[in-house]
Amino acid sequence: MSNGVAALNAPLVGAAGSRARLETPSLLLDATAFEKNVSVLAEMAAVRGMGLRPHAKTHKCAAIAKAQLEAGALGIACAKPGELLALFEAGVNPLMLTAPVASRLKIDRLAAAAARGADIAVVVDRAQLIADYAASARAASATISILVDCDTGLGRTGVTTPAEAVALARMIEAEEGVTYAGVQAYAGNVQHVLGFEERRAANRVANERLQAIVTALKAADLAPGIITGGGTGSHMLDFEDQVLTEVQAGSYVFMDEGYRPVDLHGAGEEVFRFALFVAVTVIAHSANGEAITDGGTKSFAIDGPPPRAFLDGVEIGTIAWAGDEFGRLKTHDGHAPPPAGARLECTVPHCDPTANLYDVVHLVRDDVLEAIWPIEGRGLSD
Amino acid sequence: MSNGVAALNAPLVGAAGSRARLETPSLLLDATAFEKNVSVLAEMAAVRGMGLRPHAKTHKCAAIAKAQLEAGALGIACAKPGELLALFEAGVNPLMLTAPVASRLKIDRLAAAAARGADIAVVVDRAQLIADYAASARAASATISILVDCDTGLGRTGVTTPAEAVALARMIEAEEGVTYAGVQAYAGNVQHVLGFEERRAANRVANERLQAIVTALKAADLAPGIITGGGTGSHMLDFEDQVLTEVQAGSYVFMDEGYRPVDLHGAGEEVFRFALFVAVTVIAHSANGEAITDGGTKSFAIDGPPPRAFLDGVEIGTIAWAGDEFGRLKTHDGHAPPPAGARLECTVPHCDPTANLYDVVHLVRDDVLEAIWPIEGRGLSD
Repeated sequence: MSNGVAALNAPLVGAAGSRARLETPSLLLDATAFEKNVSVLAEMAAVRGMGLRPHAKTHKCAAIAKAQLEAGALGIACAKPGELLALFEAGVNPLMLTAPVASRLKIDRLAAAAARGADIAVVVDRAQLIADYAASARAASATISILVDCDTGLGRTGVTTPAEAVALARMIEAEEGVTYAGVQAYAGNVQHVLGFEERRAANRVANERLQAIVTALKAADLAPGIITGGGTGSHMLDFEDQVLTEVQAGSYVFMDEGYRPVDLHGAGEEVFRFALFVAVTVIAHSANGEAITDGGTKSFAIDGPPPRAFLDGVEIGTIAWAGDEFGRLKTHDGHAPPPAGARLECTVPHCDPTANLYDVVHLVRDDVLEAIWPIEGRGLSD
Repeated sequence: MSNGVAALNAPLVGAAGSRARLETPSLLLDATAFEKNVSVLAEMAAVRGMGLRPHAKTHKCAAIAKAQLEAGALGIACAKPGELLALFEAGVNPLMLTAPVASRLKIDRLAAAAARGADIAVVVDRAQLIADYAASARAASATISILVDCDTGLGRTGVTTPAEAVALARMIEAEEGVTYAGVQAYAGNVQHVLGFEERRAANRVANERLQAIVTALKAADLAPGIITGGGTGSHMLDFEDQVLTEVQAGSYVFMDEGYRPVDLHGAGEEVFRFALFVAVTVIAHSANGEAITDGGTKSFAIDGPPPRAFLDGVEIGTIAWAGDEFGRLKTHDGHAPPPAGARLECTVPHCDPTANLYDVVHLVRDDVLEAIWPIEGRGLSD
């Protein structure tokens, strides 16, 4: 089966000026911005004695995960078993599955990977799931680490009370084949609160609930070794609160228009750079002269503010959707619609589901296509 | 690279009760509804002496395209060269590219396919594109058919005036390597007008503009052999107006929540059945008891009304989004949240970009997984 633009662009790897000649639509990772994002957050965490477990739901790409591990990450978080297993097969380890599952086949696959050397931690929200993980682990002669999934306000998965958390932790400790590793609480409800002080207040509510659970676990002689959660929106506040032992930030590595208005560091400064772009080509002009591009809702996940479009590094407008396959360039004042054949690089509304649309990401440095990386976990939401 | 749920579900093909045991999230095609949709529209077109050129942008799947051709379709329409070439490699022919392009490499690839037996028609909106197609066709010793792309109100691509259309048609006729095949006008602005009479009026405006172009072409001795356009929303009206010679309907084969409120046939009756579903599993429950599923915005394109969720064939609620990987079941009155492990089948907000998320589609008939079909054009927006 064809692998799309990767096959067309592969001959360009390493060639001078290749970035401007990429066939489109194609997913671009700006190497300089990407490397800066990876190192900045790693250093911020290290300085504060916090761990970092970057979330691969954002990128699903082994090369990116390995760069995060090389920068000091404790391991890589994954949202789904299929994503986790694809990254393990591509050489990524340790791995943490951050959501409960309800498929014995999936649990068996995780246990089989653990038997082959995958260092796997998972989360549970109910007794049956502990029993299932333990049974699969024993059958595979493997060990799986388990954390208790806690809900501190997101309202999605996890137990809410200290008593429930203690009960589940005790069950984990009592089972053969699994080890009790700690707790998880992802405050997804906090990440996109725009103002720093508002987000600080919301995150503190979540962390206070989590602290109550941690305190109860300690009192029950079940002190959690790992207290994991947080994200790109809350990482500074989680460093401040010191309830978590590690942060599961994902989007920081790419950045997107959804996070752009979020004051991440309380100083209005941009610490993370935009590293992810979709390159598109002007294929035609509408009757009123607007440039029509070859990237629509099959090339961008649209759950976020519109992309900004750059021509030769200059922001010249934003993209409106003109169907599943096409975009419509809304030029800023003072900029003319570029001619057919012009290539634009566009930021993305929401990075995670956008990266999930592409089989490969094109690593570009300055004006050169440096490498084409497979996105091993693409489409693996199973 | 893993191919996700396909590898997990492949052993189930043909097994009794396999539909209910599919690993999820997985894309399902209900064979009975699909076959009915394909045959109903084919018969409607045949009765009225109209051609049908189903649009593969909806499904990107060779097996589906072949079923449409077997039911009498003139050929298959594609939105992008990559999609077209993937279907050609999988044995689909003839093929029509329904959008202008601006990449000489892509044009060369189309010409190379034409030299290897692909019966390819394309559309143009400008003189340069005619020259490029002709030059590539000559270099490949191939012939490419060209239609003039006309804009009758969508405001995306194509010429708007009869004079422009005549000028381009004349240029096509004058070039070696290409043949003048007719005109295209896709009234995408009409397709989702909800009321039948309102849509009829809007479509008539578009078809009158198109008729003026056709009349001018005939007067210039450039009578178009093919007059192509239309879609699922306008097909009945295009059959009625008889300006088009063929209709490019796409969504009718799957149906989605976006088309559900559109009165397609003026009688309020549902002629096309819902054939496309995403199967999801309840993986947990939120603190307030809602069922959380394993299908979020990476498993559904969300540009349409929310999915309806069916449990054992009974509609029990709708799906709200709980992140990129998760859904939240909002049960209808009288239905309880199903337990962890329960499998739901969900309609989709918008079929085209949803199918584009999956590497395979699972063909199910009654309670059996009958086949797993590759979606050859997935992700090929290039």
